[in-house]
Amino acid sequence: MKKISILGSTGSIGTQTLDVIGSDPGRYEVEGLAAGGNVALLLEQARKFRPKRVCLATREAAAEAAQHLPAGTKVLYGEQGLVELAGEGDADLVVTAIVGSRGLNATLAAIEAGRTIGLANKETLVTAGHIVTKAAADKGVSLLPIDSEHSAIFQCLNGEKRSDIQKITLTASGGSFRDKTRDQLKGVTVEQALSHPNWSMGAKITIDSATMVNKGLEVIEARWLFGVDYDRIGVLIHPESIIHSFVEFTDNSVIAQLGLPDMRVPIQYALNYPDRRPTPTERLDLAKVGTLQFREMDEQRFPCLRMAYECGRAGGTAPTVFNAANEVAVARFLSGEIEFLAIEHILETVLAKHDCISRPELETISEADAWARELASRV
Amino acid sequence: MKKISILGSTGSIGTQTLDVIGSDPGRYEVEGLAAGGNVALLLEQARKFRPKRVCLATREAAAEAAQHLPAGTKVLYGEQGLVELAGEGDADLVVTAIVGSRGLNATLAAIEAGRTIGLANKETLVTAGHIVTKAAADKGVSLLPIDSEHSAIFQCLNGEKRSDIQKITLTASGGSFRDKTRDQLKGVTVEQALSHPNWSMGAKITIDSATMVNKGLEVIEARWLFGVDYDRIGVLIHPESIIHSFVEFTDNSVIAQLGLPDMRVPIQYALNYPDRRPTPTERLDLAKVGTLQFREMDEQRFPCLRMAYECGRAGGTAPTVFNAANEVAVARFLSGEIEFLAIEHILETVLAKHDCISRPELETISEADAWARELASRV
Repeated sequence: MKKISILGSTGSIGTQTLDVIGSDPGRYEVEGLAAGGNVALLLEQARKFRPKRVCLATREAAAEAAQHLPAGTKVLYGEQGLVELAGEGDADLVVTAIVGSRGLNATLAAIEAGRTIGLANKETLVTAGHIVTKAAADKGVSLLPIDSEHSAIFQCLNGEKRSDIQKITLTASGGSFRDKTRDQLKGVTVEQALSHPNWSMGAKITIDSATMVNKGLEVIEARWLFGVDYDRIGVLIHPESIIHSFVEFTDNSVIAQLGLPDMRVPIQYALNYPDRRPTPTERLDLAKVGTLQFREMDEQRFPCLRMAYECGRAGGTAPTVFNAANEVAVARFLSGEIEFLAIEHILETVLAKHDCISRPELETISEADAWARELASRV
Repeated sequence: MKKISILGSTGSIGTQTLDVIGSDPGRYEVEGLAAGGNVALLLEQARKFRPKRVCLATREAAAEAAQHLPAGTKVLYGEQGLVELAGEGDADLVVTAIVGSRGLNATLAAIEAGRTIGLANKETLVTAGHIVTKAAADKGVSLLPIDSEHSAIFQCLNGEKRSDIQKITLTASGGSFRDKTRDQLKGVTVEQALSHPNWSMGAKITIDSATMVNKGLEVIEARWLFGVDYDRIGVLIHPESIIHSFVEFTDNSVIAQLGLPDMRVPIQYALNYPDRRPTPTERLDLAKVGTLQFREMDEQRFPCLRMAYECGRAGGTAPTVFNAANEVAVARFLSGEIEFLAIEHILETVLAKHDCISRPELETISEADAWARELASRV
């Protein structure tokens, strides 16, 4: 039995991970579950999967949960609890599904403990790609992507030599506003932004899809996961989200991974790599889909993607600042405080004021992150 | 340097193989070239690539060629010459690009000599799949597919376990008459049939694409190459011929191989497997292609595909008879002797009269082949 811990078990990826685990009895054991404030759902998950450790965001939530958990369940809380849950115990694989850059220290603790990482928290690589990939290489730990695009690329690279990669292309549905012009983006509502055409995902990533920040973060993530420079990472609009991404090799042959949009396939793949297991998902019927469409990405229409490439190429603290400013801007948009187009304005303003520091240590990253958040909260 | 022999060097696959070889100087050495009656082109190829052995169809053609070849070039002819060219000498890899079942003995001779096979002659596996795959397994010889569909499947299976295959799907452009109803097929001309929408190929295979016999032969070929039963091999119409075929795995994940329709990619892949080398081909730009379409295969519209599945499932001499009758029927259509729709009528008639023999030896195959040809020539 494979022992799994999940950081972010009550979120979209977390619940789908437990769905995959529950669908294949006898194959997995749940070692630890970490959630934020959703005590009720965490308790329900704990009753079903009987983890040895759980973690919640606050001491209060942990105390509340402790009353309802079986004796012997270790109840942790906060950042330190998350790090302990990731680093201690017997998990073979840790799914890092916490949204935002908060997942970094716990991910490093899991790597330090030699556990395979099922990486759903792309901000980890965006903010500290050089530190995380080096730690993983030093410990011989695999970083198995759970993003659908990166899982697709990872699957396309099966049995292939990295040196044969000519180009990686990440497909993008275009998000909830793909058919709107920039003028039509003025005054769009939170509700409209949250209505993604293909994928059912958390709120933050759905907004990031609409701004194309998500694809920008994915480009940076791909650079670290696959060791390919930015000139060889492209983005293509593909409204149907059936081709999840593809790799072109030096012989002009292209290998693509396809499927209906369902995160349980990449989750299953990370949990079982290099094996494949049946998933509780629908099979792709291309005749039923009928048509797949593709069009060039337009960086005028989606300036956040251009900014992401610029930050990726600049390196250092630039991607951290890009990501932190975006987290704050999205939260402000979701709370109704700012307009949709203000997200990109905040990014632009914060990035313009940032003095990039090369090859930052964790502390420098943390400082840049805090600086960007503070500034983004008042632009 | 890799030493290559080509059986069928003046045909479509043969000339494109030499194009690939010529585009990558210092990587290959041409060991032997076998052609039919095109002495002029064979001589041109021999001047450029300096093979040690050449073979032509007849003693007369060989005698003519011998006058113009450098001293020391061994000149062979006929079936026996072909077998000698395939079996003797130092070739590492033999490309079997002769059309029709005539390539069988030479392919077996190459396998017997331990050479890797670049298999472009699908009839070899159709008529004697059980013998050829067993011989290759016994000798530890790889059969590397050169058909675009099978090369696609082979590439999709890189690094994957055969036991994880859920389904193989071969894509089909639909051929020159894909948009015609069965009624509209009455009275179509040879010229119309030879005008394939996507691929530039030899005459026989272009007609086989229009009747869907080609896809039927490919289904049988796939069964032998990949050891997958017929229930797990499907055919899907894909007019653009960009997705060359795909594999669905047990986790519902689909891996596909894509590219512009150009045989030099699969040829290069077979010549260099497991390496990939630059090819003198155009890169795929999906945004430029814009749209990919898919629709169900219709066995009412294309009865030859249904017959191929029936023959494949029946096994024994049935695929041999299907293939031999088709070779004669296509030749009769190309010569203007019969109508296009008579091809399927001939197949149906010959198959109805055939008493299938299980697990036939080469001699039985040869007899069934001759019987089918004789009958097909007079239906």
